[in-house]
Amino acid sequence: MILCNATLATMTGGYGLIDRAAVAIGGDRILWAGPETDLPRDLPPDCSNDRLDIGGRLVTPGLVDCHTHLVFAGNRAREFEMRLNGASYEEVARAGGGIVSTVRATREAGLDDLVAAALPRVDRMLAEGVTTVEIKSGYGLDVDTELRMLRAARVIATMRPVDVVTTFLGAHALPPEYSGRADAYIGEQVLPALQAAHAEGLADAVDGFCEGIAFSPAQIDRVFAAARALGLPVKLHAEQLSNLHGAELAARHGALSADHLEYLDGAGAAAMAAAGTVAVILPGAFYTLRETQLPPIALLRRYGVPMAVATDCNPGTAPMTSILLAMNMACTLFRMTPEETLAGATCHAACALGLTDRGRIAPGLRADLAIWDAAHPAELSYRIGATALHARIFGGRLDT
Amino acid sequence: MILCNATLATMTGGYGLIDRAAVAIGGDRILWAGPETDLPRDLPPDCSNDRLDIGGRLVTPGLVDCHTHLVFAGNRAREFEMRLNGASYEEVARAGGGIVSTVRATREAGLDDLVAAALPRVDRMLAEGVTTVEIKSGYGLDVDTELRMLRAARVIATMRPVDVVTTFLGAHALPPEYSGRADAYIGEQVLPALQAAHAEGLADAVDGFCEGIAFSPAQIDRVFAAARALGLPVKLHAEQLSNLHGAELAARHGALSADHLEYLDGAGAAAMAAAGTVAVILPGAFYTLRETQLPPIALLRRYGVPMAVATDCNPGTAPMTSILLAMNMACTLFRMTPEETLAGATCHAACALGLTDRGRIAPGLRADLAIWDAAHPAELSYRIGATALHARIFGGRLDT
Ligand SMILES: [Zn+2]
Ligand SMILES: [Zn+2]
Repeated sequence: MILCNATLATMTGGYGLIDRAAVAIGGDRILWAGPETDLPRDLPPDCSNDRLDIGGRLVTPGLVDCHTHLVFAGNRAREFEMRLNGASYEEVARAGGGIVSTVRATREAGLDDLVAAALPRVDRMLAEGVTTVEIKSGYGLDVDTELRMLRAARVIATMRPVDVVTTFLGAHALPPEYSGRADAYIGEQVLPALQAAHAEGLADAVDGFCEGIAFSPAQIDRVFAAARALGLPVKLHAEQLSNLHGAELAARHGALSADHLEYLDGAGAAAMAAAGTVAVILPGAFYTLRETQLPPIALLRRYGVPMAVATDCNPGTAPMTSILLAMNMACTLFRMTPEETLAGATCHAACALGLTDRGRIAPGLRADLAIWDAAHPAELSYRIGATALHARIFGGRLDT
Repeated sequence: MILCNATLATMTGGYGLIDRAAVAIGGDRILWAGPETDLPRDLPPDCSNDRLDIGGRLVTPGLVDCHTHLVFAGNRAREFEMRLNGASYEEVARAGGGIVSTVRATREAGLDDLVAAALPRVDRMLAEGVTTVEIKSGYGLDVDTELRMLRAARVIATMRPVDVVTTFLGAHALPPEYSGRADAYIGEQVLPALQAAHAEGLADAVDGFCEGIAFSPAQIDRVFAAARALGLPVKLHAEQLSNLHGAELAARHGALSADHLEYLDGAGAAAMAAAGTVAVILPGAFYTLRETQLPPIALLRRYGVPMAVATDCNPGTAPMTSILLAMNMACTLFRMTPEETLAGATCHAACALGLTDRGRIAPGLRADLAIWDAAHPAELSYRIGATALHARIFGGRLDT
């Protein structure tokens, strides 16, 4: 197939804009991309005989949502409502609210239930041009349920035209049955679950939540050491609510990414830059929690840390599925530029997942593309979660 | 048709929740709504023979977006990008940005262009359960273009299953050719355009923007006097950026609504309560402008002023089409409750448009309904613009 009459944002050096462009696709790969007038004559015939004029529309790499918790059961709408009606933290907890309510519902859900609950969320992402999505465990907090969540993520990849990257997040929160015994939880549940997930091929990476309300740097270090012994890359929820120097810890382990980062300091940014660790910016949780501490975007720019942007789709702090809305929030709330947020949802998001075969439009990369009813890539961030996708190409196959 | 196995939020007194409920529909009206076990035996046969089991899903009144500027040409993405790249107000203005760029594009657009540009926005609203939408003029700022915008709004109502309520907003901004001559603009363009719009049946109401950067209370008073002489109801963009006592002015004219209201004071709230003027809360513009002055929700509650919530869909300060997102923002940013925001997008929004035949589920009202893949109405505000509509019923007709 050759897409012609396209406005390309190749994301090779800024937007990498090319007007009146063409993209040649063979199998699941991009064969060539450039100005239509330079289209090579020696493309394979089955490619050049199938031309699709897309009417000048904008074409970007397929979007990559590199940080989601989209497999879970239940929702937290009643808790949202209680808090807005003035309920205290204790009253919400007494009514069974908080992350434990999601853990309880997820433990009670079978594999099919988890998949069925997640698919509408995945479908909304696909409708916004997402072609790769990361999915974390972390609402099971016991061996069986953590594995079931990851299996659900793998099942989703067989049911929809999307690549799923899985992340084991046993060290997400301390389940009530281990209250006051976080080290025992790590030893008795997290590490065995990690071993089992790896043995079953369920974990592409390992994540943790390093925070006063979650796990200490020493506990995260234990999990990361185990991950690295298995050859698995790591990433970390770090510096969201305070500065425990999680980003430096992550960088020491060569982490793919450190995520949230509102309280990151210069030492953390320097360590990330040196380790090639991507900063994953998550404005949805900042918005929902009405935080006031902005992530240090200028600092990240100064140190040359690549920035990704993701939905953080989760039932507690970011019940959202729109990566376009996350991009708009990153501009509006954090003053990132539309060019940065598009890189953040394409090439830098692919880096945050350790994927080198996507996120840009260039020969040899996967033919994952999004075609937009838009003329300029700034429109994707300008609208508040509303730009219409015209069509999506996943692995060289068009779906509209 | 009888919808059965429904969870009804009738919006008659709070949510007005009824489990295991049924709604009987005849023609374009609701004949009956209540617990399924109480369903009357004497319904017309063509009604009782057509039963639709909706599987326990939530049914609300069709949503009413009571404040939009969705007819316009062009977009302001490049200006959004310039500002985020550090351009000053003057640089943006020199590059042709600001509202004048929308006015220029709208003046150059024909009727068909305006309709074509607006339809995707309308379609996104319908996909979120909207059955009535208000559309304002205000980007023409000359007689011909103001009329063309209102004609476009009327055309939209013939092309989609939605009721459109039109509002003449000639006093939206001062066009460059009248710089420094606002009174002349009112006399030479706004009042003649209002007369012509009324003569052609194009204006259901009359609006203005009362603000230091727009029109003074005295100028708005002139427009409102002309509107009332024609028998047209009025409404006002008031107290958004400062307190010019626009809400009191609007209340003196018996306004349907005063909108934005971040700087409203007690005297304004009291005047609105006495006049039955609805407060239309518009969090999208607050979000985009990164304002810090919250609208006085507690004050409005104390005075018993009904609150509506709307998208304010416009290319400058709220490039959004999602009323669900506006509801979530009203909760998250302004601490309204999910019950208040759903009333704000149904019964109170209908009041803000002077419509008494919709916005609740009750016998005799229009059969405009939204059926949701949700179990409880709090879910509509809890998700950040993401709850899936299952189906919509407009004037008794189902579209999925
Ligand atoms: Zn997360
Ligand atoms: Zn407005």
